[in-house]
Amino acid sequence: MAMLVNQLGANLTVRVVGAPHDLPALSDFEVVELPVPEPAEGEVLFRSIYMGLEPSMRRRMPTPVASPGPSGGRVEIGDVMPVGQLPLSDPIFAGHVGEVIASRHPDFAPGDFVKGGTSWRTYHAEPGRLLLKLDPRQTPLRQEMGVLGQSPFVAYCGMETIGQPKPGETVVVSAAAGAVGSVAGQLARIAGARVVGVASGAKARYVVDELGFDACIDRTAEAIGPALDRECPDGIDLYFDNVGGEIQRAAYDRLNNFGRLVVCGMVSEYNAPEPDHGPPLRPLLRKRLRIEGFVVWDHAALYPEFRRRMKAWMGEGRMVYRDDLIDGLASAPAALIALLGGKNVGKMVVQVGEDPT
Amino acid sequence: MAMLVNQLGANLTVRVVGAPHDLPALSDFEVVELPVPEPAEGEVLFRSIYMGLEPSMRRRMPTPVASPGPSGGRVEIGDVMPVGQLPLSDPIFAGHVGEVIASRHPDFAPGDFVKGGTSWRTYHAEPGRLLLKLDPRQTPLRQEMGVLGQSPFVAYCGMETIGQPKPGETVVVSAAAGAVGSVAGQLARIAGARVVGVASGAKARYVVDELGFDACIDRTAEAIGPALDRECPDGIDLYFDNVGGEIQRAAYDRLNNFGRLVVCGMVSEYNAPEPDHGPPLRPLLRKRLRIEGFVVWDHAALYPEFRRRMKAWMGEGRMVYRDDLIDGLASAPAALIALLGGKNVGKMVVQVGEDPT
Repeated sequence: MAMLVNQLGANLTVRVVGAPHDLPALSDFEVVELPVPEPAEGEVLFRSIYMGLEPSMRRRMPTPVASPGPSGGRVEIGDVMPVGQLPLSDPIFAGHVGEVIASRHPDFAPGDFVKGGTSWRTYHAEPGRLLLKLDPRQTPLRQEMGVLGQSPFVAYCGMETIGQPKPGETVVVSAAAGAVGSVAGQLARIAGARVVGVASGAKARYVVDELGFDACIDRTAEAIGPALDRECPDGIDLYFDNVGGEIQRAAYDRLNNFGRLVVCGMVSEYNAPEPDHGPPLRPLLRKRLRIEGFVVWDHAALYPEFRRRMKAWMGEGRMVYRDDLIDGLASAPAALIALLGGKNVGKMVVQVGEDPT
Repeated sequence: MAMLVNQLGANLTVRVVGAPHDLPALSDFEVVELPVPEPAEGEVLFRSIYMGLEPSMRRRMPTPVASPGPSGGRVEIGDVMPVGQLPLSDPIFAGHVGEVIASRHPDFAPGDFVKGGTSWRTYHAEPGRLLLKLDPRQTPLRQEMGVLGQSPFVAYCGMETIGQPKPGETVVVSAAAGAVGSVAGQLARIAGARVVGVASGAKARYVVDELGFDACIDRTAEAIGPALDRECPDGIDLYFDNVGGEIQRAAYDRLNNFGRLVVCGMVSEYNAPEPDHGPPLRPLLRKRLRIEGFVVWDHAALYPEFRRRMKAWMGEGRMVYRDDLIDGLASAPAALIALLGGKNVGKMVVQVGEDPT
């Protein structure tokens, strides 16, 4: 085993070295060459082919602020990731699809393809029990990081467990062209709701023309409040929030009785050292509103049904998904910065190595 | 029927004539004598014996502020009460227990005792289908406005449908000596939770000594944050909020993963023309929190089980309830003002007329 590992050369790795105040810069990251890890008993060594990027990675970067109290300040890694379930070796965690190089787990052999979560690097030694074996004859590997990856699953969990859109309801989705929002809106359409997206610039047109939302507000072109009034004349029953900030507040103010605010992400606030105020809770009483957050790991049991249903909807043409392929692990920091700036359409996937399928 | 009504004399009525900026004053009310109403077909004329007071009555008073947007400003009566279900004839609605004087509904006869919701006055003509017939041999009439009245039922609905306390959890209840809070905390104790109250002055001792809470913070004696840290060393799993404001924020900041904030009342804000900011929603994501409001009318179907269980808990000595009896309808405005100022222990019940039982 040691000889094999030596033949592989260096393990390209991206590490976080800065604790940015707001939007991270390239200087907050460094690209280094580390040794390829030796798999321990029960572990599998794999080479990454695709790695997914998520805005929530920003939340896992260290922040320069001392904690003012239990709700603010530095995010502890153990708080975000259930330690022990998915081990971390550096602060930025990502989903990978890769090819097995060596295995000390009975279920995996060299040449198998696997999916698992670990950090930003090329070679990974991970416990086999945390990996999913893939069949590229059934599903292209790139789709495993895309439409069957974490972001669409986040959208699915938020809609299934909290949002629960009903026929005829009005659903608003922010960051509607993004990896999560694009799926959240299509799921609400499948459930029979009228879906209004919020996106920036040309992406608003893509959301209507390609994703099939009923309408989409270009937030760079007009004020959000009057635009929501126009596009949601019957109020809002469900706001699926990926951004926080002023869109959250405007949508909350327009929630109908029994309205739900699903807090899926708050990307507008991830770069701020202190959390913003929330919306006033007084209308919650009279309107019987619910505001709820969730973490996708809690709903892992839904993953098999998610895969089955997503494949069926794709086959019926009811689910459209786009990814942006980024070339090379060294480009991941720039891609994450672009993602946090709202520059992407669909899922950002980093091609870490050659896809042999 | 007209002759009978004429014999009854005047119908003492309290009306709201002011739109107070903050705490209402006596000058915001007037006591007038109106004609006794004639019951229409299907209606019952009854004389009030007991009337319950609720802090939420403040929310139904007109406010002097023009609406700044859908979430703020003037509260419309139709928004608060499902119009048609429980008709209103003036802005302050209350629960009453009374004696039937005349009936044009087949299920009721003079001398029957009934419970129903209407406004602040002595004689009421209400549709029989909205009235509950009482048996004073089974339950004292005064208890119908007290432990079996609206406030304990509000506590029950909030705990059963949203809070759902579990054995070993830490539950915090504000306004813990009050008509709702006292029951909310005892329900959480019955469910096996550790319960910490928040109350003012001597009421904090009453909450522990008579209601059996595990602890109670006197918010007039110390800062709420450090006191919660001391009394809730394992954090808070459920905060049952009757007050809003700084206690809400301090409790929210200390919620554990999967914590719930049940918004039952926000009495600290009812006198303010503009709603306060809410707590920051960012921790909602990481901690999977839920914030939810409710309105008791939506859960009317739970009332029979509530009555049955409350009577059983009373019989077993597991549910303690106290009321403050106020003499005469003309004293109701002063009593409501005292209630909004946190002067009460337990439920404030106005004795409107003689109890013949």
